[in-house]
Amino acid sequence: MKTFKLDSRLDNDCFILSESNQFLVLLMDNSLVPWFILVPKTDKTELYELDKTMQSKVLTVINQLSDFLMKEFSPDKLNVAAIGNIVDQMHIHIVGRYATDVYWPGVVWGATEKKPYIAVEVDKLRSKLDSILEI
Amino acid sequence: MKTFKLDSRLDNDCFILSESNQFLVLLMDNSLVPWFILVPKTDKTELYELDKTMQSKVLTVINQLSDFLMKEFSPDKLNVAAIGNIVDQMHIHIVGRYATDVYWPGVVWGATEKKPYIAVEVDKLRSKLDSILEI
Repeated sequence: MKTFKLDSRLDNDCFILSESNQFLVLLMDNSLVPWFILVPKTDKTELYELDKTMQSKVLTVINQLSDFLMKEFSPDKLNVAAIGNIVDQMHIHIVGRYATDVYWPGVVWGATEKKPYIAVEVDKLRSKLDSILEI
Repeated sequence: MKTFKLDSRLDNDCFILSESNQFLVLLMDNSLVPWFILVPKTDKTELYELDKTMQSKVLTVINQLSDFLMKEFSPDKLNVAAIGNIVDQMHIHIVGRYATDVYWPGVVWGATEKKPYIAVEVDKLRSKLDSILEI
């Protein structure tokens, strides 16, 4: 696609951790759980509509983010989801969950409690992610 | 893996639509939204832990189920998610959502309202799915 503009709600709620020609990797501004959002630069809204090459790349980046999240945050479970009921621009959540987190065992979507990051934590995370991410 | 046993909660909540050596395809017994659950026969709990071949097969079946669900039910949006906070046996939800359904725009997980299927509807769906599913 020629032009891509990140949805304003994602832009407001998240930090941009990384960007390439094909993807944006966001961090939800909620330090209560580690929460990445992968945004493929596409105007399709459903995963099954992507061509095989792009699907395979999406899967590769989900794997990278999952692996990073597990090593960095040691959660008890990952939640990986493409929902898009409110923001229909395609985005995939990769969330680390703990049996002790405030939302457990419920899902994080729709919950209101959150705790913003302090800037230095985001910078640290961006720098660590940069060293492993290939997008 | 040598033996595979479907988690009893999934077994209680769902109908089995299809089964192969590698997968089970379930239908959540809730006719308020079309809701498939894909269960890869694995003892891993996270998608990124599957080997590349199995990941690719999972993606192929998600595509088949997504395409079938869209054609059969014409929802406004798909919700595709691997959560597993309560049932840690790996399972992937593929849910058709409507801007008019009772849960919209919230997610279906954790909601309590539901409406069981009548048996003939399940049989009809199983038969239709059989004609397109390759697992």
